[in-house]
Amino acid sequence: MNIRFYNGRILTMNGSEEILTGELWVEGNRITHVGPAETIPHPSWDREIDAEGNLFMPGFKNAHTHSAMTFLRSYADDLPLQEWLNQQVFPMEAKLTGEDIYWLSKLAIMEYLTSGITANFDMYFHPEQIARASAECGFRTVLVSGLNDFVSSVEELERDYLTYNQYHELISYCLGFHAEYTTSEERLKGVAALVEKYHAPVYAHNSETRREVEECIMRHGKTPTAYLDSLGLFQYGGGGYHCVHMTDEDLGIFKQRGLSVVTNPGSNTKLASGIARITDMMEAGINLAIGTDGPASNNCLDMFREMFLVTGLAKLREENAAAVPGEKVLSMATAGGARAMGLSDCDCLAEGKLADLILIDLHQPNMQPLNHVAKNLVYSGSKANVKLTMVNGQILYEDRKFHIHEDPEEIYQKANEIIGRMR
Amino acid sequence: MNIRFYNGRILTMNGSEEILTGELWVEGNRITHVGPAETIPHPSWDREIDAEGNLFMPGFKNAHTHSAMTFLRSYADDLPLQEWLNQQVFPMEAKLTGEDIYWLSKLAIMEYLTSGITANFDMYFHPEQIARASAECGFRTVLVSGLNDFVSSVEELERDYLTYNQYHELISYCLGFHAEYTTSEERLKGVAALVEKYHAPVYAHNSETRREVEECIMRHGKTPTAYLDSLGLFQYGGGGYHCVHMTDEDLGIFKQRGLSVVTNPGSNTKLASGIARITDMMEAGINLAIGTDGPASNNCLDMFREMFLVTGLAKLREENAAAVPGEKVLSMATAGGARAMGLSDCDCLAEGKLADLILIDLHQPNMQPLNHVAKNLVYSGSKANVKLTMVNGQILYEDRKFHIHEDPEEIYQKANEIIGRMR
Repeated sequence: MNIRFYNGRILTMNGSEEILTGELWVEGNRITHVGPAETIPHPSWDREIDAEGNLFMPGFKNAHTHSAMTFLRSYADDLPLQEWLNQQVFPMEAKLTGEDIYWLSKLAIMEYLTSGITANFDMYFHPEQIARASAECGFRTVLVSGLNDFVSSVEELERDYLTYNQYHELISYCLGFHAEYTTSEERLKGVAALVEKYHAPVYAHNSETRREVEECIMRHGKTPTAYLDSLGLFQYGGGGYHCVHMTDEDLGIFKQRGLSVVTNPGSNTKLASGIARITDMMEAGINLAIGTDGPASNNCLDMFREMFLVTGLAKLREENAAAVPGEKVLSMATAGGARAMGLSDCDCLAEGKLADLILIDLHQPNMQPLNHVAKNLVYSGSKANVKLTMVNGQILYEDRKFHIHEDPEEIYQKANEIIGRMR
Repeated sequence: MNIRFYNGRILTMNGSEEILTGELWVEGNRITHVGPAETIPHPSWDREIDAEGNLFMPGFKNAHTHSAMTFLRSYADDLPLQEWLNQQVFPMEAKLTGEDIYWLSKLAIMEYLTSGITANFDMYFHPEQIARASAECGFRTVLVSGLNDFVSSVEELERDYLTYNQYHELISYCLGFHAEYTTSEERLKGVAALVEKYHAPVYAHNSETRREVEECIMRHGKTPTAYLDSLGLFQYGGGGYHCVHMTDEDLGIFKQRGLSVVTNPGSNTKLASGIARITDMMEAGINLAIGTDGPASNNCLDMFREMFLVTGLAKLREENAAAVPGEKVLSMATAGGARAMGLSDCDCLAEGKLADLILIDLHQPNMQPLNHVAKNLVYSGSKANVKLTMVNGQILYEDRKFHIHEDPEEIYQKANEIIGRMR
C-alpha cells in the first residue's frame, strides 16, 4: 500500500521538538517523505488521507510485557504480592496451552493498537505461538526468553534465538532469562556463554522488589545487577525490567555496560513494589524505556497511563514538581524503547524509516487548547486520542476498527473461554 | 424524552456489587425501571437503544475542580509549585473575563462527558458564567465559593448562595472559601455566621501541602482542620479538598463532624504534594469522594486516571498491594462524590432516581475477559470505554458525538483565542 497523509501536524521525535506541518508519505513499509507538500513525481496512491490537522508521531514501544497474561486481567486483584503470585498467577499459568497463548496474545495486541503501541518486548512461554499471533496481526514483536529453573533450557534458548531472528520481518528475538532469583548460577553461566558466542545483549527482570535485592545479597553478597555483571552477562549490553531498587553502583554498571532501564510504573504501583530512581538514571545518562508489564499486574496495556506515572511518581518521590519533564517521558516511550529493543529502524519519523506510526486526534477536549502538544500527550493524553495505528506500513487500527485479520468478538470469546475453563 | 435501553448489564451501585442484566428505562429526567424486561404498560418510547451487553452505571461525580482553568492546560508544566502558581497561574487568571470563563467551562464540560462524569463541584470566579455554561450544556454543577482575601466577600457569598440555589434544576451552590492560608480570620468568621444562619455545610482546600499545614500551625497553633473547626465552620458538615497532610486528630474531626474528604491524586502527583491517607480515612469511617482538581494542575479531567491513582498511590504509600480495593474506589467516584456534593438523588441507579448515568463499552480489548467488571473499571478502564453519558435524562455524549447545543470546534477555537490573547 502506498498512502499519502496530508494536512497533518508531525512530531518526528528525531531529536527536535519542533512540530512540522504538512504531509507524510508511506510506500510499502517505509516512510518516503515527511514535511511540506512536494511536487516531485510520486507513485499513484492507494489511499490519500486528510489528517485534519491531527498529529503524527512515532508509535509507542512497549518495552516490557507478558502479553498472554490477558486471561488474568482483573481475576485476582488487591492481594498481597506473594499470595497473588503463588496462589493465583502460577497455578493458572500452568494450565495454559500453546493455543491459549496464541489467542491471549492477540487480545493484548488489540489493546496495544488502541493505545498507539506499535511494538512490544514480550517475555512469555511458547514463543512459536506469540510469533505466530503477532505476525498474523501484522504487529511487531521482539521476543525475549523467560528462561528459569522451571521453564526452557540454555539449549532451547539458543535454538529459539536462531529460529526467531529468521522467522518473519516483524519478529526478532533477544537473549534473556526471567530473573536472578528464579535462575541457577549454572543456567546463568550457560546464558553468558551464548552472550559471548553471539556477542548479544541480554535482558531480565532486575531489582523489582526490595526483597529480591536483599535475598540476592544474602545469596551472593552482591546486588542482582552486580552479580549478573560478574557472570559476564552484560558485556554486550542489554537491560533490566523494573529496576526499582537500584544502588548507585548498579546505575554505574548500567551506564558502563550501555544497559537500558525499562521502567514499569503501573505494575510497580499496583503491586506496591516502589518507585524507580528515574531522575538519577537520566542524570547518569542511562537509556530509559517504558513497559506496561503484563496485564495481570497493571492491569491495562496503556502507554498513556505509564507515561503520566513515569513523571508523576518521580515528582512524588523527589517532592519536586519539576522532576522528569514531559518531553523526556515522550522520548522514553518512543526512541528510548526502540533503542532498548534493538529497533533502530522505527524510532522516529523520517524518510527511510519503517512506517510504525500513530495519528493522535487533537479534535478532542483533552487536547485543547494547543498550548504544548508534547506535554499535553504525557499529562492529558488518552487512548481515546489514538485515531490510527500503523505498523510496518499497514494500518492495523483506524477510527476504532481493527484490521488484524481476525474478528475482535472471536478473540474476546476465546479469552473468556480460556479463563472460564480454569475456574 | 422517554428512552428504553435493553440488553444491558447494570451495576446499580446501590450497595450491592451484583451485576443485573436487563433493561433501564428513563422517562423525563428520572429512571423508572431497572432490571428484567417487564410487560407492564409503559409510555411510547422516543428511543429504544440496544445496549449490546454493555454496562450501565451511575455517572462519576467530579467532587473538586476549577473547570475554567482549561486555558492553562499544558501551558506551564514541570515547574516547582510556587513558581508555577505565582509566575504562571495567578497573573494569567487575572486576565480572564466572564465571557472567557463561560467558554472555558464549556470546554471542561465536554471533557467531563468523555470521561463519564455527570456532575462537578466547581470552585471558580464568575459563578454566573459557570452556571450559564453548565445549564446550557445540560450538565449538573454544584458551585462552591472560592472566597478569599482577594476575591469575593461574605456579602457576595450569601447573595450567590441564595441566587444559585434557585437558579436552575441542574445548578446548586455550597458555602465555601478558598483556604485557610488565603482567607483572614475576619472573613472566616463571616462565613461561620452564614453556616449558623443557614445550617449549611462548608467546603475549602485543606492540608494540600506540608507547607500549608506548617504555616497554619505557626499562625494559629493548630492544623487547618482544627483551626477551621474552632471557628465553628464545620458544625453543619461540609468537607475538604485534597486533605493530603492530615493528623489523626484531623481525621477525628472529619469523622465527628461528618465531613467528606475529596481526594485529588492526579493533582497531588503532578504538583508533588504527597499521598493522602486513604486507608486511614476509610477505617475512620469518613466519606470519601474523588476530584480531578483543575486542568492546569492535573492536566486532564479524567475519572479513570484518578480512580487508578487513588488505589495505586495508597498501595505504594503503605507498601501493601491489598490496600484500598477497586470496588471501594468505584464507590468513592460515584456514591461518595454524590454524598459530598449533596446530590443524594443521583447517587445510584434505581427507580425514582435522577437519570445521571453512563454506558461503558465492554466490547473493547481492555475490558476483556469479563473477570470482574468493577475492578476492571478501576484498573483498566479508560475514557475510550465511555459510550454514552446521560445527565438528567438527556444524552449529552454518545459514540463520541456531543449533544450540548454548541459546536465543539467553536469551543476549541475560543479556548485557543483566549490563551493566544494572553501570550
